[in-house]
Amino acid sequence: MPVDPLDAESVAAALRRIVRSDQLLSDPALRDEYAHDDAEWADFHRPLAVVLAESADDVAAVVRFAAGAGLSVVARGAGTGLSGGANALANSLVVSLERMTRILELDVAERVVVAEAGVINDDLRQAVAAEGLWYPPDPASYRISTIGGNVATNAGGICCVKYGVTRDYVLGMTVVLADGAIVHLGRRTAKGATGYDLTALMVGSEGTLGIVTDVTLKLLPLGGREDRAIVGSFSSLEAAGVAVAAIGAAGVIPSALEIVDEMCLRAVDEWQSLGLPHDAAAVLLATVDEPGDSGAAVAASVAVLMTDAGALRVEQAAAPDEIERLFLARRLAYPALERLGPVLTEDICVPRSAVPEMLARIRDTAAAHDVVIATIAHAGDGNLHPLIIAPEGDEAAKARAKEAFDRIVDDCRALGGTVTGEHGVGLLKLPGARRELGERVVGMHRDIKAALDPLGILNPGKAF
Amino acid sequence: MPVDPLDAESVAAALRRIVRSDQLLSDPALRDEYAHDDAEWADFHRPLAVVLAESADDVAAVVRFAAGAGLSVVARGAGTGLSGGANALANSLVVSLERMTRILELDVAERVVVAEAGVINDDLRQAVAAEGLWYPPDPASYRISTIGGNVATNAGGICCVKYGVTRDYVLGMTVVLADGAIVHLGRRTAKGATGYDLTALMVGSEGTLGIVTDVTLKLLPLGGREDRAIVGSFSSLEAAGVAVAAIGAAGVIPSALEIVDEMCLRAVDEWQSLGLPHDAAAVLLATVDEPGDSGAAVAASVAVLMTDAGALRVEQAAAPDEIERLFLARRLAYPALERLGPVLTEDICVPRSAVPEMLARIRDTAAAHDVVIATIAHAGDGNLHPLIIAPEGDEAAKARAKEAFDRIVDDCRALGGTVTGEHGVGLLKLPGARRELGERVVGMHRDIKAALDPLGILNPGKAF
Repeated sequence: MPVDPLDAESVAAALRRIVRSDQLLSDPALRDEYAHDDAEWADFHRPLAVVLAESADDVAAVVRFAAGAGLSVVARGAGTGLSGGANALANSLVVSLERMTRILELDVAERVVVAEAGVINDDLRQAVAAEGLWYPPDPASYRISTIGGNVATNAGGICCVKYGVTRDYVLGMTVVLADGAIVHLGRRTAKGATGYDLTALMVGSEGTLGIVTDVTLKLLPLGGREDRAIVGSFSSLEAAGVAVAAIGAAGVIPSALEIVDEMCLRAVDEWQSLGLPHDAAAVLLATVDEPGDSGAAVAASVAVLMTDAGALRVEQAAAPDEIERLFLARRLAYPALERLGPVLTEDICVPRSAVPEMLARIRDTAAAHDVVIATIAHAGDGNLHPLIIAPEGDEAAKARAKEAFDRIVDDCRALGGTVTGEHGVGLLKLPGARRELGERVVGMHRDIKAALDPLGILNPGKAF
Repeated sequence: MPVDPLDAESVAAALRRIVRSDQLLSDPALRDEYAHDDAEWADFHRPLAVVLAESADDVAAVVRFAAGAGLSVVARGAGTGLSGGANALANSLVVSLERMTRILELDVAERVVVAEAGVINDDLRQAVAAEGLWYPPDPASYRISTIGGNVATNAGGICCVKYGVTRDYVLGMTVVLADGAIVHLGRRTAKGATGYDLTALMVGSEGTLGIVTDVTLKLLPLGGREDRAIVGSFSSLEAAGVAVAAIGAAGVIPSALEIVDEMCLRAVDEWQSLGLPHDAAAVLLATVDEPGDSGAAVAASVAVLMTDAGALRVEQAAAPDEIERLFLARRLAYPALERLGPVLTEDICVPRSAVPEMLARIRDTAAAHDVVIATIAHAGDGNLHPLIIAPEGDEAAKARAKEAFDRIVDDCRALGGTVTGEHGVGLLKLPGARRELGERVVGMHRDIKAALDPLGILNPGKAF
């Protein structure tokens, strides 16, 4: 049954009967702040209203209202997404979970934490670290992104090469369904095989099947690891890629294995005057975290593998501040590049052995489309982030950037890769995702979506 | 549209037009061999026919035939399941994947293997070990169960306490859907966030959403680990449980942490005359696998934790044959108990800290229902296998065993546990699973099932 579109004023009036007025943003300027996440290259609309939910009941009430009013609901954490998953749609309400920041339970003996969706990743890390525990997934946004957003996109990070992604740590969750029902999925035990893995289905579903309001996460012991960094400078990206393949083939699983290319190194150096070397076309940054003599042996073998792959220089460090210094270029790369203009962030993942070839193709794409592309990569996972930069206001360059984006996605697919490694499909990766999945598997997505959200009100048009 | 039930002869005649006659079992005695898995305590029926599929195309053809004829399809690997997931239904065809035993690809550099569903777990382990790689999930049935069955039930095992369960290793799969379409789900890259995690949805779905014909599995390097065993004897099950909790609280993650109770020890000793000690009410078997000095330190700390928890004796071993000897009681427990009569195998999983309480309740249940219960447990995961034994032919004892089974499930739920840790719901755990999931979440299962299998022909009535 189609419903006449509502205007923002009548929506606000109706929502004031559901939530307190200080939980409602109706001013157009404020609503615009919630119109998109960090993927402003993708389409977005001004939402009719923004609700700052404080409980699962708030979320449920808004979903029920939306279902009755024929509006769609876009859930949002901190808005740090890079694929447009939280971009507002026409005739949509944005439900922000940013106020749901309570850690509901921390069971040290079980190594389990229950956190509301709005808890910032780093706040969670610090809270559990105070009890000797560790939440590994560490997206680059960990200081500003929420656990709920991490779950919605199945966020990755630097340590995922050894310790896995968000999905690997989510045991259970509370979810508001499309009819406003509040359900608990999953478990809090170490193992479980009861029914379908609906928890895993929800992770990475970008708010299209339900709105996650709290999550039960598995934790690891904080201790027992000793970080050692090994950093090699290479005269070409491909040589760094060869070192990555050699480390993999040697059976070493580092706790981080990152590539930063020349463009990133220069941007960081020009910004921060760190005196970074100018002869390297790429730096390969590794950490290993085995303790004791075995850790020292693994670090030494990584250094040898880098040297054998043709590294110009290899530095090692075990002191935390030295490791921090060696990894500074990696940490500062993204903000340094953003100073140069709007950044269109790619997030492809190819088989590890295809990393050198993919890096070469990215360089060719930059030349062919006359765009600037800097690359940072979770190289050990084959997860590459080519960052396509267009000067502010240069619409022609922006168009070329989008063409380059599509070509990189095609090349990734040709090499057996997947179109998004850790940022999610959102809107930016929809065409690539549809090609990758194929018509029948997209149909399975559509059938599951229709089964769980028959009115199609939860973030429609995203994720597949 | 209801279809008149077919008799076995006309089904066989129709199937002979689809598969070769040597792929079809129509003799009643042969069909009876495929009527149930290792859960003969659950209901089963003689299937109308058994097809020995040799390809995804065979499976698809049978599914299409079944859909047209109004029959259900029960997929089956080696039939080693313990919950009745592969038990045949009335008016069903059994599709056995036991002939699909090819390893389609082993990519050593990527650490990825693609195996058909019928590959025996141990054959896969040996094939990848020959290339220096390791497939961790090690259900007790690993010498006889298939990868496809492991995936269908999300099988666990001994090393899962540190290395995770089947789900953690499945990157992608080929699946025959309910309409006979053959699709590829997932990926072969280390990371991926493209679309819903339909691969995870299929793992553990017991053939109710699709029939998995091959799987793409992540592997680990085989090397870099050094096993050390630490085995403590305790004067009570609870004391062993206290040691488990202490090991967890100390931040140690052993690569195995198993409990074997007195009943198992005696059954093994009476069978094999190993001269096992008779003063222990429980043995706690741990391995740690960190290499070098850190491994030695971890092993020493585990020994101290066992001693502090009141162990009567603690033995350590690092030589493989010594470790094998110490773990012999664990390996032989199940066959030793089966000699005493039909075994009804429980598979509950409780929070680690609830292990001592759960063990005490199991003992009380045995007394209250006058049944023999022996317990082996993946204690480090909180995953307990109380084995309820009824003498052959004693129907009253069998009825009491079923009552004890239900009471253990209730106690597990009361302690925050889940009704199946690694065997799956099948038929045996249906009532418990329904109570655990609740009406609304069962409804989500039903909606997803209906979305992907609208005719309800794939193993209906199982899993939820």
